[in-house]
Amino acid sequence: MPAFPPVRLEHASRLINHGPTVLVTSAHGGRRNIMAAAWSMPVEFTPPRIAIVIDKRTFTRELITASGHFGVCIPGATLADLTYAVGSVSGRETDKFKRFGIDARAGAITGVPLLEQGCSAWMECRLIPEPHTEQAYDTCFAEVLSAAADERIFQNGRWSVREDNAELHTLHHLGGGLFAQAGTTVQARAVD
Amino acid sequence: MPAFPPVRLEHASRLINHGPTVLVTSAHGGRRNIMAAAWSMPVEFTPPRIAIVIDKRTFTRELITASGHFGVCIPGATLADLTYAVGSVSGRETDKFKRFGIDARAGAITGVPLLEQGCSAWMECRLIPEPHTEQAYDTCFAEVLSAAADERIFQNGRWSVREDNAELHTLHHLGGGLFAQAGTTVQARAVD
Repeated sequence: MPAFPPVRLEHASRLINHGPTVLVTSAHGGRRNIMAAAWSMPVEFTPPRIAIVIDKRTFTRELITASGHFGVCIPGATLADLTYAVGSVSGRETDKFKRFGIDARAGAITGVPLLEQGCSAWMECRLIPEPHTEQAYDTCFAEVLSAAADERIFQNGRWSVREDNAELHTLHHLGGGLFAQAGTTVQARAVD
Repeated sequence: MPAFPPVRLEHASRLINHGPTVLVTSAHGGRRNIMAAAWSMPVEFTPPRIAIVIDKRTFTRELITASGHFGVCIPGATLADLTYAVGSVSGRETDKFKRFGIDARAGAITGVPLLEQGCSAWMECRLIPEPHTEQAYDTCFAEVLSAAADERIFQNGRWSVREDNAELHTLHHLGGGLFAQAGTTVQARAVD
């Protein structure tokens, strides 16, 4: 089974620094799930911490609350259809991994399902319980425990977006299944 | 003075749904400021609410705490240099609007500076005081009070990313002044 090389923890927040839509994975008591989330952001580099919005009515939220962990996988451009699909169907009655033929392995630290095929990176996260913001804003804070990335697009703590790795370019949900693809870059110059 | 047409409040959260880097503006007691923020996300569509990370040591945070308001402006691709510049210099001793020649007008509801030149959209926001998350995660929650967008790239609540509006494509900070530009799109198809 292929395995992405690790990303140093102080670089983990950079994986979602630019606002990609992500896949959130979870597992507890023999059940597992995967959903899409457009709303996430880093909140700290060291220790690496993130915030992510997960509706309290979802099965994912139930599994995360029970296990205290979740995974964040960053889909590449070729997974646009799958990303939209797992974001549109509930996993309460269906194992979406089976239904959509998703290959995943269990994270070494948390046991959450992690995807590599078609993805650029993943993170294993520990929920930091914050009952008020979870209730009022569906906003879950978490610490990143481990991260790994495909070296073709992320090396030495940096994204490298090029024409020859287009299939791994991140997706950014504009609405209704329409994604912007982060496929070109611009380097800012210093201004006086 | 040009003025973007209004965006309906139920569509306001879509302006940052795809994770663009934004410019945060603030004003209080005759002082004003502008900074860049890569870390923001919607947390609710109706009412439109967002979360944004603003370091507690910044002058912006001081002005927002004092006034209870801030502006979010979404820079287009031609503002990459300016976006990086205002994110690298403190406004405590310098009026960055003067220093960088930024044209802004005061928001009708909150009085915060709003940029249109080179931007695709803006929002006026009211801070929802959450002392714990502001302190622990530098995460500020806010309600969007009004929003407006350039019709060339956002109409009827939808982004329209095309070759002919490249100068308004959003910027997504990868790190070190390198931005991904949201310049192409992919429409997801239903998967069974």
